[in-house]
Amino acid sequence: MSRLRVDWRAATSLVGTVIKYLSVPLLVPLIVALRYGEGIAEFLVTIAVVVAIGTALERLDPDPDLGAREGFLMVALTWLLVPVVSTLPYLIAGNGIPFVLAPYEPASTLGNPVNALFETMSGFTTTGATVVGEISFERHSHAILMWRQLTQWLGGMGIVVLAVAILPELSVGGAQLMDAEAPGPGIEKLTPRIAETARALWIAYAGFTVLLFVLLYGLHWAGILLDVPLAPNMGLYNAIAHPFTTLPTGGFSPEARSIEAFSAAVQWVIIPFMVVAGTNFALLWRAMTDEPGALFEDGEFRFYLGIMAALTALVAGLLVTGAGTEAVTEAVGPLAGQGEAALRHATFQVVSIVTTTGYASMDFNAWSGAAQYLLLFAMFVGGSAGSTGGAIKIVRWLVILKSIRRELFTTVHPEAVRPVRLGGRALDERALRGIYAFTLLYIAIFLVATVVVLVDATRVFDNLSAFDAMSAVAATLGNVGPGFGVVGPMNSYLDFPATSKLFMVFLMWIGRLEIFPVLVLLTKAYWSS
Amino acid sequence: MSRLRVDWRAATSLVGTVIKYLSVPLLVPLIVALRYGEGIAEFLVTIAVVVAIGTALERLDPDPDLGAREGFLMVALTWLLVPVVSTLPYLIAGNGIPFVLAPYEPASTLGNPVNALFETMSGFTTTGATVVGEISFERHSHAILMWRQLTQWLGGMGIVVLAVAILPELSVGGAQLMDAEAPGPGIEKLTPRIAETARALWIAYAGFTVLLFVLLYGLHWAGILLDVPLAPNMGLYNAIAHPFTTLPTGGFSPEARSIEAFSAAVQWVIIPFMVVAGTNFALLWRAMTDEPGALFEDGEFRFYLGIMAALTALVAGLLVTGAGTEAVTEAVGPLAGQGEAALRHATFQVVSIVTTTGYASMDFNAWSGAAQYLLLFAMFVGGSAGSTGGAIKIVRWLVILKSIRRELFTTVHPEAVRPVRLGGRALDERALRGIYAFTLLYIAIFLVATVVVLVDATRVFDNLSAFDAMSAVAATLGNVGPGFGVVGPMNSYLDFPATSKLFMVFLMWIGRLEIFPVLVLLTKAYWSS
Ligand SMILES: [K+]
Ligand SMILES: [K+]
Repeated sequence: MSRLRVDWRAATSLVGTVIKYLSVPLLVPLIVALRYGEGIAEFLVTIAVVVAIGTALERLDPDPDLGAREGFLMVALTWLLVPVVSTLPYLIAGNGIPFVLAPYEPASTLGNPVNALFETMSGFTTTGATVVGEISFERHSHAILMWRQLTQWLGGMGIVVLAVAILPELSVGGAQLMDAEAPGPGIEKLTPRIAETARALWIAYAGFTVLLFVLLYGLHWAGILLDVPLAPNMGLYNAIAHPFTTLPTGGFSPEARSIEAFSAAVQWVIIPFMVVAGTNFALLWRAMTDEPGALFEDGEFRFYLGIMAALTALVAGLLVTGAGTEAVTEAVGPLAGQGEAALRHATFQVVSIVTTTGYASMDFNAWSGAAQYLLLFAMFVGGSAGSTGGAIKIVRWLVILKSIRRELFTTVHPEAVRPVRLGGRALDERALRGIYAFTLLYIAIFLVATVVVLVDATRVFDNLSAFDAMSAVAATLGNVGPGFGVVGPMNSYLDFPATSKLFMVFLMWIGRLEIFPVLVLLTKAYWSS
Repeated sequence: MSRLRVDWRAATSLVGTVIKYLSVPLLVPLIVALRYGEGIAEFLVTIAVVVAIGTALERLDPDPDLGAREGFLMVALTWLLVPVVSTLPYLIAGNGIPFVLAPYEPASTLGNPVNALFETMSGFTTTGATVVGEISFERHSHAILMWRQLTQWLGGMGIVVLAVAILPELSVGGAQLMDAEAPGPGIEKLTPRIAETARALWIAYAGFTVLLFVLLYGLHWAGILLDVPLAPNMGLYNAIAHPFTTLPTGGFSPEARSIEAFSAAVQWVIIPFMVVAGTNFALLWRAMTDEPGALFEDGEFRFYLGIMAALTALVAGLLVTGAGTEAVTEAVGPLAGQGEAALRHATFQVVSIVTTTGYASMDFNAWSGAAQYLLLFAMFVGGSAGSTGGAIKIVRWLVILKSIRRELFTTVHPEAVRPVRLGGRALDERALRGIYAFTLLYIAIFLVATVVVLVDATRVFDNLSAFDAMSAVAATLGNVGPGFGVVGPMNSYLDFPATSKLFMVFLMWIGRLEIFPVLVLLTKAYWSS
């Protein structure tokens, strides 16, 4: 019937299955709403809609059979359509249903469809950039904010599968690095293996989520029992909400001032979990199940820790000597000479940005140019391959540095043939080429996207500084979340024009999917022959 | 005698020859000094010193025979030692000679050795970043400023030879792109060809210099004869000085306010010469001698013009609508609604930065964030391979874009083998790898160097903004010259601490030599085996 080589029905059918199963996690905010006596209509309607749409899409191909090409389409569509249908709770809460239901949250900025899509895309891509504006329970129900947290946790689950099981099969953007032994022509043959890998990693993902909950809530109760303010405001809701956005390196928080709202103890507890979230989950699984030494034998993991340690040392040095801050913030007070506080905020912020979590332990807009630049730099580093972290990713930088060393060697010895080695094995030149291409494409998109945002946003902002715009693009494309200036950690993306917001939705989308799966859809070669 | 495989004596001997011949161009400022009745001791002493040092170095190896390894050393040493000895006129003018000569220019900032080296390195690398501070004939003689101009013109001559004849033989950093037909194992075999090529290109280089002089000085006299202010201040001195810094994409000017000091007519005349200076001289030569059509058939040249046209259109649009300026400058007045002025400043500034000339037709520090960002973006584009322009260079971007397209294709068709083509022929995968490695190394050095400058400069500046520091690094590493803020086109690098200045000397040096020839000297492989 169709002359296309791509079986779009099969791909869309599988997206339908994913959408249908959204009805299960939608029960979480529903329960929260019941618990707090809040409106539940938005969730009931959404559950009905996702089941209906999902089932309808599944009918397109009752027995879908995916090849590599369909894989690209399915991945791209999933991360587009899931955020689209997930706007429904926001839209209904903000606008009600004509003739049926008055809006629960008339002051919500998420009643606007562009804002709602920005927020769900930011959620499912685990970016954490927000357009909520004023975050408070006066404006939003506990249930709606829990849904916002949950989009990130679900997005993180998707990313773990994507990164560890799907992208490697599509041989995209260097993701094949992680498992060069089993490249396959299509996805369908490997379904059992995917399912098995995914299950293992989800156990790890969910396990760390629960562990963080236990620690945070335990800290809260320990403080109460000992009568010490260890974590006074880390009640049940917050203790559930934050693990939901830590493990996916998401960064949404129901607190307007992010992690600044919590005690030093809470901040120290969250740091190692961000580190875990930015680590290759397959590696973590291996280290936990049979090879405890695997972690520190891994070159990528060592490089990851090393970069964070170096950046932390620099930032902490700046902060503690007083060269790191332009202004003393009211909430945190002075950092100069304050060893623990300087080290804590430096560590927290560097780890938060390198792992692309995007939490803030203080308003780093008050930091000096040098300290801010170190964070911008960190935005391009990114988490490990196979983690929920975004951006360019540490393993690519490692391979690039190794290949530059090789290039220096072959400049002197033009006759030498010397493969780049990673984890003891020689890297295929084609994989290397893919890493180079991805990294440069990422940088090129960053450079050009900043032009687009700056030119478009001049219609709204009197003068958006180039640095702030660069940070906004780096933070959305890299799925980091907050940037500097107007998009600082205590501010929001709300004031950007709708065109800029839609453009950033696009950036979050392609950034999360490692660009190529989306970009190939725009080529003629993909659709024909 | 030596166990080293590198014949450092041969390399140093050739550097000695270059230094010895510096005595010839030193006659130019000497003549200027005589013409203006200024001191000549600094030039006489320098001539004596370069002849002495040059002759001494030549003695190391009376019959030098260079291989590829010695080529790297010779290139790196030349661009280091020539600037070092060329500081002498500045040092003597600023400090005099103890017990012999009182300083001619006691207020000169160039009496400081670090400043002097910064200025000569900026000259010979055709960067145009300055630490003179207050540029005026009250502080500096016509002769000293002419020497400053001349360092750029000489540096440009060196770069033409380096880019067209030497780097390709060393197979460095993608420079081999320009002439893949004749890769050779060493330099010595190709000396006749180098000499021949160099002679042709120097004729072109000198020819365009003279042509620009004729046009500028002609404009001056036409204005006088017609009694119209066409170029009132483009007297003989300025009409000689500016061609000396245009053709090498240098950007030094004896006018404190750069090209803002001149009429619109002069600005329009200079623009096409900056375009020429950023064009592959070998291509220009071919177009002028036997194939007039070669220019526009060349993919790199078309891409070069296309990028400049696109950036100009964007900047002009911003300026003419008023979205491009934060403040109206006194010297230029408002640009909103001023079609010709907006187009002229947009064209001038974009061409000046893309070609890495660094002239300013106005203080673009007054531009908006969007317009400034477009210039920062332009700093990474760079001139054509085989031109005097610096930075990453247009041909690399072209190849990278083509290879990303290829990568998209092979993502869909993993079985396909598809070379990247440039100018009708397939590019060797190894050359492609070199281009990738160079570009990413350039970006990595830029990112890390900005950290160094920001951290180091906090000792002097209250708060150096990250954007200004990024521009300073991009402008020195890319041999552009001016940046933004404290290093804006009407300001200078004077206020940076000496350590930052020396670091920038290093950046100008490695940037000009396309990084690899310097970096290989730091590898063990270069010196041993
Ligand atoms: K994030
Ligand atoms: K320059």
